[in-house]
Amino acid sequence: MRITLIGSGNVATHLGAALKNAGHQVVQVYSRNADHAVLLAYHIKAEAICNLAEINLDTDLFIISVKDDVIEELASALSVHQKPIVHTSGATPLATLQTYTNKAGVLYPLQTFSKTKEVNFKAVPMCIEAADQGLDETLKQLASSISNSVYAVNSEQRKILHLAAVFACNFPNYLYHASQQILAQHQLDFNLLRPLISETADKVQEHLPSAVQTGPAIRDDKKTMAAHLTLLNGNDELTTIYNLLSQAIIKMGKA
Amino acid sequence: MRITLIGSGNVATHLGAALKNAGHQVVQVYSRNADHAVLLAYHIKAEAICNLAEINLDTDLFIISVKDDVIEELASALSVHQKPIVHTSGATPLATLQTYTNKAGVLYPLQTFSKTKEVNFKAVPMCIEAADQGLDETLKQLASSISNSVYAVNSEQRKILHLAAVFACNFPNYLYHASQQILAQHQLDFNLLRPLISETADKVQEHLPSAVQTGPAIRDDKKTMAAHLTLLNGNDELTTIYNLLSQAIIKMGKA
Repeated sequence: MRITLIGSGNVATHLGAALKNAGHQVVQVYSRNADHAVLLAYHIKAEAICNLAEINLDTDLFIISVKDDVIEELASALSVHQKPIVHTSGATPLATLQTYTNKAGVLYPLQTFSKTKEVNFKAVPMCIEAADQGLDETLKQLASSISNSVYAVNSEQRKILHLAAVFACNFPNYLYHASQQILAQHQLDFNLLRPLISETADKVQEHLPSAVQTGPAIRDDKKTMAAHLTLLNGNDELTTIYNLLSQAIIKMGKA
Repeated sequence: MRITLIGSGNVATHLGAALKNAGHQVVQVYSRNADHAVLLAYHIKAEAICNLAEINLDTDLFIISVKDDVIEELASALSVHQKPIVHTSGATPLATLQTYTNKAGVLYPLQTFSKTKEVNFKAVPMCIEAADQGLDETLKQLASSISNSVYAVNSEQRKILHLAAVFACNFPNYLYHASQQILAQHQLDFNLLRPLISETADKVQEHLPSAVQTGPAIRDDKKTMAAHLTLLNGNDELTTIYNLLSQAIIKMGKA
């Protein structure tokens, strides 16, 4: 397919590379920031533009991959070209695009992307949605060309997924940070914990998390929890987090 | 080495297998529960006993791998044999054993173990401690025979590691559970989130967690956070956790 990428952030960067690797032609990369547009366009052999007036109309699809709060204004501006428009946002309903076009869709990659790290896109769940049947079929094919996991997910379900992803990704990463800070305060190497973090994530690839919960809270081991709280003495934030999550785990163990 | 394993839980099971695989002879496995002793002993070609009177004295080392609150009574009972005694606990100081023997040590594998899942022991950080220099050398060699990561860690540091491990492992696993429950309530497949969980853990293998934090809180995206709280409406526990961790991430972003 001939695709125009609107945006140059983390998702646009990884998606653009995956599209190119799958043999699609990214015609243009648009970004308000010319440097960002050039950088991504260079890597995926596209043309960089930073003005919507320069849009090349020889394209099959606009993919809007920008911050949630500017999706709508871009969709509005692009709708004059009468091409299908999709966004890549977990939190934005399809309806936001449908105001501007009948050929509206969503292509939501359920993954965390950082510019510094390669991602195996074949393993990234692609959640697609389109009201138009032709576009739905097109998105299924497009998603299948870059990933082995393609799911039909409606806007309500996508909101739930986006929320659940915060619990599965953003919050655990913060807790990794907390553990790293605890070690750093005592001149201990974060490498000591890295294998544990890997194994914890590996375990739930085949098991349900509730089946592999370990630690003092699930054993309701009050002595160890009290000792941990003593060590946290003076750190109110981590003390509150420790208590709250331990209570939740104790409750889960009794459920 | 000729080793006697006191205990048959998750740690004893994985450690016993790693010792056998490295060419050591596990002489006996002791457990109060005869079935547990037999099961582990069978797998690592040891003798199973459930009575301390049957201890074979032709051994070089007792490894006590049991619940923290029974370590001391076992150390007391075993001390009559005048053999080196080590435990595998993160939360128990060396001094607990030193009351009973001059040849006391610790061999703490910093990993989460479940009986249902194999672990690559070569990657497990082994934290060792001994006051006796000869035993310290022995433990270094023993740990190096089963793992590529051996660290000298004293009792104070080990307490800190054990606390940090709760933040790096037990709490993230609970949050995986929370995300799985959110999906289940909406008939969504947990497989949708599994690649995200893997990638989140993978990212911090090379980066610091603070450098790869993503999600609405680190962007201070109030609109998305408000939408998530609306979706959590009625679930007080997850609402409290969402607010607390989001505030901590916002604070981290401003630090």
